[in-house]
Amino acid sequence: MKNRTLMTDDYEYTMAYTYFKSHKQNEIAYFDVFFRNNPFNSGYSISCGLDNIIEFIKNLHFDEKRIAYLRKTHNFDEDFLNYLVNLKFTGDIFAIPDGTVVFPNEPILTVKANLVEAQIIETAILSYFNHGSLVATSAKRITEAAQNRPVMEFGARRCQGEASIEASKYAIIGGCASTSNDEASYIYGLKTAGTMAHSMIEAYDSEEEAFIEYAKANQNNCIFLVDTYDTLNSGIPTAIKVAKEFLIPNGYEFKGIRIDSGDLAYLSKEARKMLDREGFINTKICLSNGLDEKTITSLINQGAIFDSIGAGDNVVAPKERFNAVYKLVAIQNNEIVEPKIKLSNDTAKTINPGYKKVYRFYDKKTGNALGDVVLLYDEKITSDKYTLICPTDRNKTKTITNYTVRELQVPIFLDGMLVYDEPSIMEKRDYCTQELAKFYPEIKRIDNPHEYYVDLSQKLLDLKDELIKKYKSKVMVKK
Amino acid sequence: MKNRTLMTDDYEYTMAYTYFKSHKQNEIAYFDVFFRNNPFNSGYSISCGLDNIIEFIKNLHFDEKRIAYLRKTHNFDEDFLNYLVNLKFTGDIFAIPDGTVVFPNEPILTVKANLVEAQIIETAILSYFNHGSLVATSAKRITEAAQNRPVMEFGARRCQGEASIEASKYAIIGGCASTSNDEASYIYGLKTAGTMAHSMIEAYDSEEEAFIEYAKANQNNCIFLVDTYDTLNSGIPTAIKVAKEFLIPNGYEFKGIRIDSGDLAYLSKEARKMLDREGFINTKICLSNGLDEKTITSLINQGAIFDSIGAGDNVVAPKERFNAVYKLVAIQNNEIVEPKIKLSNDTAKTINPGYKKVYRFYDKKTGNALGDVVLLYDEKITSDKYTLICPTDRNKTKTITNYTVRELQVPIFLDGMLVYDEPSIMEKRDYCTQELAKFYPEIKRIDNPHEYYVDLSQKLLDLKDELIKKYKSKVMVKK
Repeated sequence: MKNRTLMTDDYEYTMAYTYFKSHKQNEIAYFDVFFRNNPFNSGYSISCGLDNIIEFIKNLHFDEKRIAYLRKTHNFDEDFLNYLVNLKFTGDIFAIPDGTVVFPNEPILTVKANLVEAQIIETAILSYFNHGSLVATSAKRITEAAQNRPVMEFGARRCQGEASIEASKYAIIGGCASTSNDEASYIYGLKTAGTMAHSMIEAYDSEEEAFIEYAKANQNNCIFLVDTYDTLNSGIPTAIKVAKEFLIPNGYEFKGIRIDSGDLAYLSKEARKMLDREGFINTKICLSNGLDEKTITSLINQGAIFDSIGAGDNVVAPKERFNAVYKLVAIQNNEIVEPKIKLSNDTAKTINPGYKKVYRFYDKKTGNALGDVVLLYDEKITSDKYTLICPTDRNKTKTITNYTVRELQVPIFLDGMLVYDEPSIMEKRDYCTQELAKFYPEIKRIDNPHEYYVDLSQKLLDLKDELIKKYKSKVMVKK
Repeated sequence: MKNRTLMTDDYEYTMAYTYFKSHKQNEIAYFDVFFRNNPFNSGYSISCGLDNIIEFIKNLHFDEKRIAYLRKTHNFDEDFLNYLVNLKFTGDIFAIPDGTVVFPNEPILTVKANLVEAQIIETAILSYFNHGSLVATSAKRITEAAQNRPVMEFGARRCQGEASIEASKYAIIGGCASTSNDEASYIYGLKTAGTMAHSMIEAYDSEEEAFIEYAKANQNNCIFLVDTYDTLNSGIPTAIKVAKEFLIPNGYEFKGIRIDSGDLAYLSKEARKMLDREGFINTKICLSNGLDEKTITSLINQGAIFDSIGAGDNVVAPKERFNAVYKLVAIQNNEIVEPKIKLSNDTAKTINPGYKKVYRFYDKKTGNALGDVVLLYDEKITSDKYTLICPTDRNKTKTITNYTVRELQVPIFLDGMLVYDEPSIMEKRDYCTQELAKFYPEIKRIDNPHEYYVDLSQKLLDLKDELIKKYKSKVMVKK
């Protein structure tokens, strides 16, 4: 990645300058990245984008041109600009690895750094995390819905220009089998897939000629697009004819057909019958056309017969947003860590203060995830029995025993040094699949999923209440 | 921009290889970019992204590394790879300029190039156009709703990573006054704006200290964020106190306040009263918090008093997509241009065939846009009287006289040469504002806008009918 040091909301600089001018630049701040709701009304999210955050932090550096830009566009004094010239990231970052199943109100990433450094990295961290997690979550929901049928990601054309390259990577981490995006494959070594569009069929005098010419050139990749003129009356009969008269005599495989329009449930069943009748029982059926987790589930429920999915828009450019925020939770000055809180009229939106960590409980016998708990950093889970409390209804509880516990955040940077050995894209993909398999199906349900328990420790709750009271009394005094 | 030659769906290459192997690579294809529906149920869209399309085409080139990638990942023969080594874009591109008001089913961009070149540029053209037009359209709707109040774009953190940089540019073209994204400003020279976040208020012992320290550092940019603890009981009184005791005595301007939560309609009215009461009648009120065209309209309808808007997510990362497509409309072989059509079960989705152009009628007296017509390339508007037909209900007509006519597409590349002199970003912004001003308010209405007439010429309609019949009879024969 390029130097993206300036990929920052401008107010990060005006604030950084304020800290610098009031000699606060050496105070250590703790910021948490978290989100309040899963996108898509999902029961879970998939964390992603840490890879780009790492690249951004590694390359954080104000070179001459960037300093000149800031000098020209802001009223900063030379002391501050000199300070920026020498700035690199010297703090700590802890984060939940890419591909992890995550939930609202968990600290996904925690920055511990001086106020200036911690502030100026906010925007890029959020942007990369929100992008990665949105696509990985969408891809995971769609690939789960496809029930082990490979999902090919096709979405570059509906994606946000340059973002399509990163999006294809996150689609693979979220479970897609391949991408159509050759630039993403070129950069990240992803598996690509692609056959033909309607325009190619139209470019030849007939469907038959198009299929034959395609087969001559791409012998091992014969998946014919059959819906250009009429799927059942033209496309499939022609594909079968070409298979019998050209593919088989030449020793090529009739790998599959793709149906991209019409009533996919009906057409796929008819297509299967037509192929089987002619003995092409191994010829696969691929469906595409704006599919998402809901339409795929509906197709399966209707008995549609298909072997793979092409999905584009809804994987890499879903009509959704991932709304993670970056909130100050503590400030350390001379060894004293003072927890901070941001109040809200809505108590549910009031942040969880203090330097924290997240534990996940797993059933020792089954390996299933039982619930998470957010604790203050110096807390430990010592008891053999733990009562989890439902985050949105504190009267609902669940007492668990015989568990193991895993801390979700791992160190990424310590004192500015990268200490994290990043897994490969395919390792992240496998990890994501394995992790999600540990969650109960009720949590993964497409509609109205069961709410997974993300508990707050009693100590954290007490701290939160105490800070709320303290801040409210401050405001009261002013009245 | 980098060389993005591989930012292409993989099937563009398998198809290109098919054309090459069947010696069709020198046939000239005509492809149209168009969309079927305005996003946001809008009455219009703003065309954008041509700038990136131009860059992409200019840089189209298969270097050694890319050839090595294709050799490794595909079964292409060396003849084809050698052909790609020498490939650059040699065709024509005609397009409607960035910032133009456009409507469904108009050819926004037309490519005339050999089949291979025309095919491999599809994905990137769509991706850049869809991204640019989505953001510019959203920005325009939001800035229109704000009724001349400046809208500051704040959205990088919710945008798709790298896409945020381009998005900020399109937000400006769509009418935003400034962006918070310094990387976009650094690259494109955009105007930035930014003051402070809640975290800065919390980083100081009190709101008062935070405001004063901020003012000391950023004297000319004092817009205080007043909702960290309690807008009416703490934030605004403190801002006023700091203004009286620190800003005024030091000769600094109390430029404004920003309210980022709570009931913005109520709070803004109360804020205005409080500021006016203390004589700060020139102090501006900025509102933010997930605002879009609907919430802004509602605020105005409720009598909210504000001078500017901060809008982020809904400008640069709206929960929407721009769904332009790239369709083959003709193939030319030895001087004969043969129009092509792609049928659909849904007649409305059947494409308009042939090499075409778009004219816009303007009222000679008022300058108002009266309607558009899509014609075949060799047609002319000669009559003084023209009857426009409603695109979705052909019984609705409107006869116009005393008009001028403008062809919307302009040449961008001719024989591979860039012939278009691109306006600056600010010129595009001004052009966009001026163009939209020529449309009747009913078309610009946020909800249930009036449908603007995009007529098809009789000759085009006849061609379409003829081709539909021809293709249907072809399929019938097969049955």
